Amino acid sequence: MSSTLEKTSSFLPDAIDLSHHLSTLAKNRVQSPLKGLQKYYGKEGMLSLAGGLPHPSYFPFDEVKANALVANTFSADASSSSSKGALSWIWKLFSTPSKENTMPISIPKYPETPEDVNLSVALQYGLANGLPQLQKIVNEFSKTVYKPAYANFATIIHAGNTDAWNKTLMSLCNPGEGILTSEWTYPSAIASMKPFGINPVPIKMDCQGMSSTGLREVLSSWDAEARGMPRPHVMYIVPVGQNPTGATMLAQRKKEIYNICVEYDVIIVEDDPYYFLQEGPYVHPAQRASSVDRTIPSDEKYLNSLAPSFLAFDYQGRVVRLDTFSKTIAPGSRLGWFTCHPTFAEKFERQAETSTQAPCGFGQSLITELLINWQAKGYLRWLKGLGAQYTQRRDFFLDCILDKFHVEIAPATQNTRFPGSDIYVLSEKTATSWYHNEKSVRQTLVSFVPPSSGMFVWLSLHFDSHPKFKEFGQESLEMQFWTALADAGLLVGPGIMFSASQLEAPDSAPGHLRISFSNAEFEDLKKAIDIFAVVLKEFYRK
Amino acid sequence: MSSTLEKTSSFLPDAIDLSHHLSTLAKNRVQSPLKGLQKYYGKEGMLSLAGGLPHPSYFPFDEVKANALVANTFSADASSSSSKGALSWIWKLFSTPSKENTMPISIPKYPETPEDVNLSVALQYGLANGLPQLQKIVNEFSKTVYKPAYANFATIIHAGNTDAWNKTLMSLCNPGEGILTSEWTYPSAIASMKPFGINPVPIKMDCQGMSSTGLREVLSSWDAEARGMPRPHVMYIVPVGQNPTGATMLAQRKKEIYNICVEYDVIIVEDDPYYFLQEGPYVHPAQRASSVDRTIPSDEKYLNSLAPSFLAFDYQGRVVRLDTFSKTIAPGSRLGWFTCHPTFAEKFERQAETSTQAPCGFGQSLITELLINWQAKGYLRWLKGLGAQYTQRRDFFLDCILDKFHVEIAPATQNTRFPGSDIYVLSEKTATSWYHNEKSVRQTLVSFVPPSSGMFVWLSLHFDSHPKFKEFGQESLEMQFWTALADAGLLVGPGIMFSASQLEAPDSAPGHLRISFSNAEFEDLKKAIDIFAVVLKEFYRK
Repeated sequence: MSSTLEKTSSFLPDAIDLSHHLSTLAKNRVQSPLKGLQKYYGKEGMLSLAGGLPHPSYFPFDEVKANALVANTFSADASSSSSKGALSWIWKLFSTPSKENTMPISIPKYPETPEDVNLSVALQYGLANGLPQLQKIVNEFSKTVYKPAYANFATIIHAGNTDAWNKTLMSLCNPGEGILTSEWTYPSAIASMKPFGINPVPIKMDCQGMSSTGLREVLSSWDAEARGMPRPHVMYIVPVGQNPTGATMLAQRKKEIYNICVEYDVIIVEDDPYYFLQEGPYVHPAQRASSVDRTIPSDEKYLNSLAPSFLAFDYQGRVVRLDTFSKTIAPGSRLGWFTCHPTFAEKFERQAETSTQAPCGFGQSLITELLINWQAKGYLRWLKGLGAQYTQRRDFFLDCILDKFHVEIAPATQNTRFPGSDIYVLSEKTATSWYHNEKSVRQTLVSFVPPSSGMFVWLSLHFDSHPKFKEFGQESLEMQFWTALADAGLLVGPGIMFSASQLEAPDSAPGHLRISFSNAEFEDLKKAIDIFAVVLKEFYRK
Repeated sequence: MSSTLEKTSSFLPDAIDLSHHLSTLAKNRVQSPLKGLQKYYGKEGMLSLAGGLPHPSYFPFDEVKANALVANTFSADASSSSSKGALSWIWKLFSTPSKENTMPISIPKYPETPEDVNLSVALQYGLANGLPQLQKIVNEFSKTVYKPAYANFATIIHAGNTDAWNKTLMSLCNPGEGILTSEWTYPSAIASMKPFGINPVPIKMDCQGMSSTGLREVLSSWDAEARGMPRPHVMYIVPVGQNPTGATMLAQRKKEIYNICVEYDVIIVEDDPYYFLQEGPYVHPAQRASSVDRTIPSDEKYLNSLAPSFLAFDYQGRVVRLDTFSKTIAPGSRLGWFTCHPTFAEKFERQAETSTQAPCGFGQSLITELLINWQAKGYLRWLKGLGAQYTQRRDFFLDCILDKFHVEIAPATQNTRFPGSDIYVLSEKTATSWYHNEKSVRQTLVSFVPPSSGMFVWLSLHFDSHPKFKEFGQESLEMQFWTALADAGLLVGPGIMFSASQLEAPDSAPGHLRISFSNAEFEDLKKAIDIFAVVLKEFYRK
């Protein structure tokens, strides 16, 4: 068992609620000499005048209801219409949406059966670990889907993964420590660390995200004095559809990383919002029609097709998994859950007591009621459909890119920067070149590894052929290009925003942009690539 | 203007979202040389592929609805039935509740008019400062009700006052600093400070809460070396229905405290969840029927009857006011708002970006839609009715206490411990005394100042007449008595839990209990006092 489990951060608040006090006192308490008083308080036991709770009759909501989509709203077959050419299926999907099937759901303030979701409970204080019905659902879900490798794992509700990460680092870290991260990572995760005097320790990446070799190198050669901090004992990782690179880590790599973390006593915080946006490998449009299996997978086959969670290898209880409903239901849910060792769960609950308390009761009860109505099978069906939607979006967006550039595919074996993965190398489309350099050789302008999960394409910008490369360097050109895109009306994520490294990258490293294909209408995704191609052309002319 | 305004806590995260980056860059950016591209992105301006946002068609809620109580659900006249004797009005109110009037409210995913609350927006990322319609409502509410003494105050949504306080102290304080608090205060507020290396600096209290004399004494004689910390520049205060003492601070005291804070450059954080639970003075049952004005006050008269907010005196922008819907709508709302100087608001928004982000969209949209349906007038009517409900609860509960004990009222002029306030002194009811000491003089057992706001009665326990007082002392007897109550099935708040002082109180100071009359059914409030009286009797016999 990890010794880190027993460490306590200085940021961990003391227990504050009465039940903690009560249980401590109960250990030493004498039995009541006043048995006669039991007539006063009946079967519920305690009559509590301890908390500052309003009476539920003062909650001005008698019933909360919704019309919710049915679980099979979206086709679970991503390829069903994509082989007919881009325009036809855009219009089919978006111009005249077919009438959606909905089902009514309802949460009464005082339901007739005690098992039902109860609005008077959901809207009251308490239950920092979530509505009992929701606790049960997420616990069973984690058990079935992620299959933790130890029995007594705990699940506890939180208010979204950003909040959960904040609670995690305040529970596990102390000022002056470092956290292992991928060299490119979610900027908010780093912005959360810094105010606590905690710094990211970037680890090299490849096409599967964090490199296990890179991780071992950093940990095995750790020089606390030179680094100015002790060897890190916490890792932050987004293993599926990584933000920003889109990389997805498969079982073998996860096992390697887990074993290194055992060796060096590192807690793995698995922030996995994109887990159910696993889109499968990108297949070139020419091969797509013939390569895709159109049968809807069984639940078992579907779950087995997904990259496993770190929990599946976690025989020691050193993984803290963060799940969120932000991508599978809606970001405004501000609801998710931890799956972790009970020791950690207790710490997270204490963090919640002095900050968020329980997540919003309206959101909790509506989402719980939806999941109860869908049942586990329905939720899996919804997730299959959602995954297929993202596959269609990914395919459409990459198809648009391929349409605008000359593409060469450097197969996995030749890919030194992203070993094990095909890399798509873009250059001028037409023979009448506008961005050839003097040597008149096809210049790599942009390259990317097609993502197999998530919302993002991570473009590498090869400005080494730009006429002003020597004058400005890669990083400055990246920001100039980003600004030129913004001036032209296209907003994307500048690569430098996602850098976990405080050091300047060597000029030989490419610049980057993170482009999201998750939200825009299909016609806007196409427009965006049109703008991108025109601005890139202009940018080389300047 | 406060110099503290410009201080920045080390706990304040950097700005992380793209709009900050964008606005910085926009300052230096050249006009686009690519005007022709405007055809691609139309009137909305920017085409954004920057954020990791799901498309709203993937939110499985088409419409969220509720049956909400009408604004005049509760009588605004607290005395309407209370003069008829306890039992009759309990049953009238609670045994056969009259059918409640409800109104349907609804939030569609895509409303037809752009002004309407929009579920597809509420459930999306973004808007850390809240739904536009809600922003407007709370801003107008703060302006009308609290009347800030400067024009450019800001309002910004948060996820409940506990969360807001956490954000406030992380924005305004640094490790090693102290925060001015009342000597008895909300324990969660202190539990939030400690992990950041921040300690409470307790100030003496009287019947109006924090003493201005006590405050000046502490600030004027501050010895940074002896105290081991610089003079505090932040105050945490619950000025209405204070937790735990129930004290309410009136205008004159607030003005005094505000002026001292100007003199010593202190930011006042006004945590005011009980503001609308102002119950008026407690009138002895014998005088109640004849003393009460039964007319429902006009909105203006009602608002003028309430103790003013610190904002009303805040000509410098040094007040951070925390409002919550927890007591006026429901605790599960996890929703409230800051009213403060824009400089602070910007810091709180940045804290939200790396933790809670926006509050839950389900809760935001339902509460916003409710307030829109009620309109400002309806919400004020709801608040008047709610206040009257708490007045009835307070009166009923104190009546039950009076019924069980012999009561003497020490008028304001004789009250040295709580100057300016009547104090109710309880002793044995019957002549056949069970707790007379040898001298056979009426011994004070319990005393309290009837609260004029909030949820709590703060009982002082005078154990100096207890036979084992010399053996155990006040604090130990307090916990023994609290445990005896718990053993007998009655849970209340032990006084020591609310102490902001790290020093032991002198044994001459009384022990305390915080008892809440806000939540239990009326018959249970009565039962609780029955248990209390029996346990107290036994406790003196031991």
